[in-house]
Amino acid sequence: MEKEPLLMLPGPVPMPERVRYAMMRQAINHRSAEFGAVYADCVRVLKTVFGTTNDLFVISGSGTAGMEAAVANFGRDKDIACLVNGKFGERLFKISQRYGKAHEIASEWGTPLNLAALEERLEQGVQVVTLVHNETSAGIRNPAQEVGRLARRYDALFVMDGITSIGGDVVEADKWDVDIAIVGSQKCLAAPAGLAALSVSTRAWERLSKNPPYYLDLAAYRKSAGGKPMETPYTPAVPLFLALREACLIIEEEGIANRIARHRKMANAVRAAAKAWGLSLYPKIDAKHAYSNTVTAISYPENIRDSEMRDIIKKMGIIIAGGQDHLKGKIFRIGSMGAVGAPEILATLAATQHALKKLGYKVQGDGIQAACEVLA
Amino acid sequence: MEKEPLLMLPGPVPMPERVRYAMMRQAINHRSAEFGAVYADCVRVLKTVFGTTNDLFVISGSGTAGMEAAVANFGRDKDIACLVNGKFGERLFKISQRYGKAHEIASEWGTPLNLAALEERLEQGVQVVTLVHNETSAGIRNPAQEVGRLARRYDALFVMDGITSIGGDVVEADKWDVDIAIVGSQKCLAAPAGLAALSVSTRAWERLSKNPPYYLDLAAYRKSAGGKPMETPYTPAVPLFLALREACLIIEEEGIANRIARHRKMANAVRAAAKAWGLSLYPKIDAKHAYSNTVTAISYPENIRDSEMRDIIKKMGIIIAGGQDHLKGKIFRIGSMGAVGAPEILATLAATQHALKKLGYKVQGDGIQAACEVLA
Repeated sequence: MEKEPLLMLPGPVPMPERVRYAMMRQAINHRSAEFGAVYADCVRVLKTVFGTTNDLFVISGSGTAGMEAAVANFGRDKDIACLVNGKFGERLFKISQRYGKAHEIASEWGTPLNLAALEERLEQGVQVVTLVHNETSAGIRNPAQEVGRLARRYDALFVMDGITSIGGDVVEADKWDVDIAIVGSQKCLAAPAGLAALSVSTRAWERLSKNPPYYLDLAAYRKSAGGKPMETPYTPAVPLFLALREACLIIEEEGIANRIARHRKMANAVRAAAKAWGLSLYPKIDAKHAYSNTVTAISYPENIRDSEMRDIIKKMGIIIAGGQDHLKGKIFRIGSMGAVGAPEILATLAATQHALKKLGYKVQGDGIQAACEVLA
Repeated sequence: MEKEPLLMLPGPVPMPERVRYAMMRQAINHRSAEFGAVYADCVRVLKTVFGTTNDLFVISGSGTAGMEAAVANFGRDKDIACLVNGKFGERLFKISQRYGKAHEIASEWGTPLNLAALEERLEQGVQVVTLVHNETSAGIRNPAQEVGRLARRYDALFVMDGITSIGGDVVEADKWDVDIAIVGSQKCLAAPAGLAALSVSTRAWERLSKNPPYYLDLAAYRKSAGGKPMETPYTPAVPLFLALREACLIIEEEGIANRIARHRKMANAVRAAAKAWGLSLYPKIDAKHAYSNTVTAISYPENIRDSEMRDIIKKMGIIIAGGQDHLKGKIFRIGSMGAVGAPEILATLAATQHALKKLGYKVQGDGIQAACEVLA
């Protein structure tokens, strides 16, 4: 096998060797004390990473399955206010439409959320609020704590998609009044794709919807997790649990505060390079919103074609992301999630700077130098 | 790591080394030609294994997620007749209750289905019929072809759970008029747990229900599978797809007819041993029903305690299954799925014979000898 490309995407991200190798072992019985201990390790570490003492479950499905589990179990037939300023906010809105009466509170992708409109909706009696904490489609971090405070003031449940922030940026689910928080395995946790984890507050349990779906029935997850051994209600994706356990142990060894500081430094380095090149970051932030610390979205300068630029970078063995949907061709995105350190960031920025120059963009300054100053 | 135990369960089952090692590679982008080719390989081989030219999709979720996808996309608000003679038939009934008007047609676990009652329901206009082809909870194989013929005669859709038969026993989805067939990855395919695959007929597409769930929305799967590259709508469990592709290539190399013959021979060997010992197979079959070729359910003789017997066998490094729900303590089950050959069967039967004797059961004859005669 030739050398694998370096994935600098907003997920999936490179996995540490220990995580990958954990998957190759022989099948184990998922109704056994051994599997129960694997699951328990994941839950113990993830609770710290989420900043919660609430119940926490791991689902064999993608982050989208986690989003749907939240909405389907706690939003059916309810009024749901969906804050949207990017693709994944839209997804939560679409999912909410399938289960309840969903109200979209939309801003342009990558621009501040309309919290005044949220408050109006809350005054009108909305029962559930959904938010994407870190919107990778636009590189913006949304003010989860403020949304949580508002939701609680009006006694609404707060569903927070932390799929691409948890494990890489500050998340304090309990302090922020998050009732359901969701993470995906292949993002900041640096585990393989295919698992989602959710935390569920006591308040949320008290408002559990009737008639949940079957595979994503969280009451069934609660029952099975409470057994001895700890189990999942249906057959789990065992190799992914083995890998997630290893990824969790690595997070514990690094320490979550160190890990978050590392993510911030890597994103700072990317932002410093963009600034040095004279490029604009895509999001329009204000005092409440911030640039994402796990993915940086940069606007293309005029006359640079997305496919050409990413092809040049790909030929150097590095994969970065373009824009999604209407942002295709308008932005490029560099992920800095998971096991990523200075070597990966520097290689990516060097390849990007080369591609920009090769395609005729006159960089204002040396982005690599600017990044090194942040990283040093 | 000490030696892994030999899993002789009705899933999960031991995986060939090639399948396990496929999972340890670095993350790949699931929106890439490379992943598309992996998915396409799985679909191509699985269509042969299903005996279908219909659309076929792989879902990142367990067999239960596959069952729910079938019912949720094609059974919502419909009258559904659920044939039940074991735990998984019951599960399909429970799932059906969450989506439509479900009518249980129940027989004792492991006894023939009531096809006359099905025909009555069909006459009354039932629109969907569900069947578990191979009911592992009781070790019985149900007459799928006959159920398909009945369903078609009355123009109902036929949902067949082939989770534990497809890849290990004869399945001809198209010849049998199966509209939706489902398989699980960790059974006869000998891949890791965590994936399900479904085939969907044109007739079924024409009757697609409104308002499907989001993660299991099969129209979204169809759209993404039709793209270039072939994709899944939401992030797939990539390592499991890599493993499934390898498992499919192994099936192709063995040849599906050879693979089915091997499964039958292994089950015949287990049945020969049980008979030699003087034990009864649990299922009560008739001309239309048969003993399962992928798991053998054997009734305990008097005075043998399930936990004691399985503990003795476990100490020899082999895991067999007990009974589920009300059959706990009454039966034991030996799986013969996937990569299992004579060595695994002989070791399991030897350990079982030893345990029976040790616990005071007077075996009538030598089960090992009887099995060897089948296997030779």
